[in-house]
Amino acid sequence: MPATGEDQDLVQDLIEEPATFSDAVLSSDEELFHQKCPKPAPIYSPISKPVSFESLPNRRLHEEFLRSSVDVLLQEAVFEGTNRKNRVLQWREPEELRRLMDFGVRGAPSTHEELLEVLKKVVTYSVKTGHPYFVNQLFSAVDPYGLVAQWATDALNPSVYTYEVSPVFVLMEEVVLREMRAIVGFEGGKGDGIFCPGGSIANGYAISCARYRFMPDIKKKGLHSLPRLVLFTSEDAHYSIKKLASFEGIGTDNVYLIRTDARGRMDVSHLVEEIERSLREGAAPFMVSATAGTTVIGAFDPIEKIADVCQKYKLWLHVDAAWGGGALVSAKHRHLLKGIERADSVTWNPHKLLTAPQQCSTLLLRHEGVLAEAHSTNAAYLFQKDKFYDTKYDTGDKHIQCGRRADVLKFWFMWKAKGTSGLEKHVDKVFENARFFTDCIKNREGFEMVIAEPEYTNICFWYVPKSLRGRKDEADYKDKLHKVAPRIKERMMKEGSMMVTYQAQKGHPNFFRIVFQNSGLDKADMVHFVEEIERLGSDL
Amino acid sequence: MPATGEDQDLVQDLIEEPATFSDAVLSSDEELFHQKCPKPAPIYSPISKPVSFESLPNRRLHEEFLRSSVDVLLQEAVFEGTNRKNRVLQWREPEELRRLMDFGVRGAPSTHEELLEVLKKVVTYSVKTGHPYFVNQLFSAVDPYGLVAQWATDALNPSVYTYEVSPVFVLMEEVVLREMRAIVGFEGGKGDGIFCPGGSIANGYAISCARYRFMPDIKKKGLHSLPRLVLFTSEDAHYSIKKLASFEGIGTDNVYLIRTDARGRMDVSHLVEEIERSLREGAAPFMVSATAGTTVIGAFDPIEKIADVCQKYKLWLHVDAAWGGGALVSAKHRHLLKGIERADSVTWNPHKLLTAPQQCSTLLLRHEGVLAEAHSTNAAYLFQKDKFYDTKYDTGDKHIQCGRRADVLKFWFMWKAKGTSGLEKHVDKVFENARFFTDCIKNREGFEMVIAEPEYTNICFWYVPKSLRGRKDEADYKDKLHKVAPRIKERMMKEGSMMVTYQAQKGHPNFFRIVFQNSGLDKADMVHFVEEIERLGSDL
Repeated sequence: MPATGEDQDLVQDLIEEPATFSDAVLSSDEELFHQKCPKPAPIYSPISKPVSFESLPNRRLHEEFLRSSVDVLLQEAVFEGTNRKNRVLQWREPEELRRLMDFGVRGAPSTHEELLEVLKKVVTYSVKTGHPYFVNQLFSAVDPYGLVAQWATDALNPSVYTYEVSPVFVLMEEVVLREMRAIVGFEGGKGDGIFCPGGSIANGYAISCARYRFMPDIKKKGLHSLPRLVLFTSEDAHYSIKKLASFEGIGTDNVYLIRTDARGRMDVSHLVEEIERSLREGAAPFMVSATAGTTVIGAFDPIEKIADVCQKYKLWLHVDAAWGGGALVSAKHRHLLKGIERADSVTWNPHKLLTAPQQCSTLLLRHEGVLAEAHSTNAAYLFQKDKFYDTKYDTGDKHIQCGRRADVLKFWFMWKAKGTSGLEKHVDKVFENARFFTDCIKNREGFEMVIAEPEYTNICFWYVPKSLRGRKDEADYKDKLHKVAPRIKERMMKEGSMMVTYQAQKGHPNFFRIVFQNSGLDKADMVHFVEEIERLGSDL
Repeated sequence: MPATGEDQDLVQDLIEEPATFSDAVLSSDEELFHQKCPKPAPIYSPISKPVSFESLPNRRLHEEFLRSSVDVLLQEAVFEGTNRKNRVLQWREPEELRRLMDFGVRGAPSTHEELLEVLKKVVTYSVKTGHPYFVNQLFSAVDPYGLVAQWATDALNPSVYTYEVSPVFVLMEEVVLREMRAIVGFEGGKGDGIFCPGGSIANGYAISCARYRFMPDIKKKGLHSLPRLVLFTSEDAHYSIKKLASFEGIGTDNVYLIRTDARGRMDVSHLVEEIERSLREGAAPFMVSATAGTTVIGAFDPIEKIADVCQKYKLWLHVDAAWGGGALVSAKHRHLLKGIERADSVTWNPHKLLTAPQQCSTLLLRHEGVLAEAHSTNAAYLFQKDKFYDTKYDTGDKHIQCGRRADVLKFWFMWKAKGTSGLEKHVDKVFENARFFTDCIKNREGFEMVIAEPEYTNICFWYVPKSLRGRKDEADYKDKLHKVAPRIKERMMKEGSMMVTYQAQKGHPNFFRIVFQNSGLDKADMVHFVEEIERLGSDL
């Protein structure tokens, strides 16, 4: 395509771009080389408006676009997307969203102008999970320091498996995992650990390590000729325990669910009964997964008592503190996880209470070397033993991924930015907000707590609209109340004013679960949530 | 701490920041509210120099820092980090790196100035995997469009499991996975699929789906009472097949490794022998994992023939095209994967040949619904069935993760930017470079090919230093040659001039494997690699 006008200038600029290192090499040695190799083609070809296909950043071609994109992101996603004056989302039904956004990909190349429009639409129609009024999940917030570190990770595009490819991140993981183990209470921070893509996978690693320790032959021989392995977790535990037990060939039936008390905590006497039952059945109990911070209620299983049981029956104690682990950095609240230092393994996701960007999940182990023992296959092409540096820093063979993102940087950088004291203040403020919100609704007509005294920062409650108040004894009360939360949720989604989730559990009608992690929220926000739910449900 | 001078102004600014929505609500209804709830504390507290602990971006506090950070990243990582004039890495031994960088985290909060210094050090001492001379792994490049999309993903911080939380990314995944299936050749693009954190996990999903289809009871009951499951893959296949088979309770011994021919392709007659052997043993063969683009040699297993065998024995055919899948977008090169449309499942990582940022991996299935059937647990708190929208868009129960990054955006955005034609040009250029490089070394003294005619863009070769030339028949030739690649690798790492890996395989002494994905490379770069290796090894 012939270049014209402005394009021609750009082409000229590109052609005149200073010689690269390879150019220099080429000219110094050119004649000799051309005796042996075909002549190289010119480096640059004319650039027309649509973007080039080449995967190498070029300042002249890309800097303006990159900066304009950052402008869009800072303005629309980071600042306006977290501004209380703006909506959390612009709800669109799938069909409508398909009309508003051209999702098709098999077209011609785009121009930078078109791409900026595309980018704006992606931001516009995405839910602003960093918005103060997004209290829908066990994650929220767009932490500015976490964000910078994510952006750095992307710009460096590393994979953490060998020291030669990821020197900084290998050492950084070592430090952060050790510090986290020390906070858990493992002696001297010793043990093992891994950053992995989400708490579910972390729980899966725990099952795998427990199983390996129980019977190392499993790694080679598999489960088919073994006794039936059984593990125990509470009925309120995260679904990943079942899911990963199934994935790992143990089967969901062999996850024995232990009853919880009215506040959602594992009933230890039932645990003992179920262990005894499994033994009577001739099965092989090998692991208990306690939960520190359940998904819905935010309950903490009694770890000390469970640890005693595990000790007696020689079972691996895993603590799924994906959600609750954040409380460990607070002197005031870490008592919730009392006994966690007795665990064999702990899942702790800094992307939940500590608001590191998605995903930042860890499995921490009290035992050294178990990850590698359970998972290594010694791939010769990646983990060569004749390297010139100490290959103990090639950590990649201990995980089940091959390439692995450097999820450590975001958390390390946030920690560096705020200090341990800052993380502690963050956690304490989130607890204060949750306490304040609880106090608000406890004394307010139309609100009713599901758990009178929440242990954590999930608050479960019903909003009882005026038409249902004082009618608890009527036969259809529960059915009617069951429909309230979904209707209010629909309204808040369609207005985009806030996002909070609901669910039924244990025979209860649907109730709201509001969850706090964002320390940028304040007491006025708590009041806002109360009033917004009242406003949305006023006519129900 | 009392605020002074500039800080005082900032505090004043913050206090005067326009009232938020919650302020507005508060003032309109204030009196009524305070009858029922405690009085909220003031929103802002004085800001001293060290950063605030709060997880909410604030334009006044953070914009300058965010923009300065982007400046560092664009300058040092994106542009200078990929400039041929600069080094690929600054090698430091672990101990030295620990001295140069303060990895410690348990200190006080930092200032923005300190954090910028920290950020610069992270960039400085990280390997520049986007540098044209980083040809060490099956990934490289920092694609500018992929990068923008990653930055957008981070700014939005989504998790792809429900339509309510990730409307844009749910629909985007649907489109991209369908298009990828169509390119694979699945009829009408129909089937199932998932973006997952790396090709190893994708291969793990394939094993899980194959196993579930073989015997759906496994999901609930596990493997303990079943016949011994056996799967087959070549001895050159990626180690993740063994690793995930072990993780999933099948055991590494039950991955039967099939011989490869001299060019690294699965020997189909040996496959048949091994299937027959497993049947004689009373085991239960259920799956073959063929490889399209092996890790070291870049070989393509003969999929058509393997598909015939799978059809005969009723085995699930998986094709691990994590690395080779990129060739499918090229009319010229897709013949390498002939027959892939007969696969039951395909792993294809756009983060490899197509240079999407890490991680962007997919599992594509010819069968609809199998992922959910194999993995769903119907968690009631997340996948409520009484939502106001069509819950078929809540895709999260089909994967084993709970939270899941929106890895689709980067690839979708690159595809949108370059068009399918751009992706094709990218692939064709990478092949051309590989071909050119091969031609260079074939005719050059001191270089010897491991595989005379490479099928793909991994080129395996020895550099034979002058002292060893013409001495092939001597007894210690192989031992001496074995030490050459590690020594040259050490030198290039210490100089930071390039990065290419080496390994021994099949009794061969260590050989180099150079891998191309970055279409920003040109023929002059190919010449540079040849000459750089000669320079580094000239005195050996």
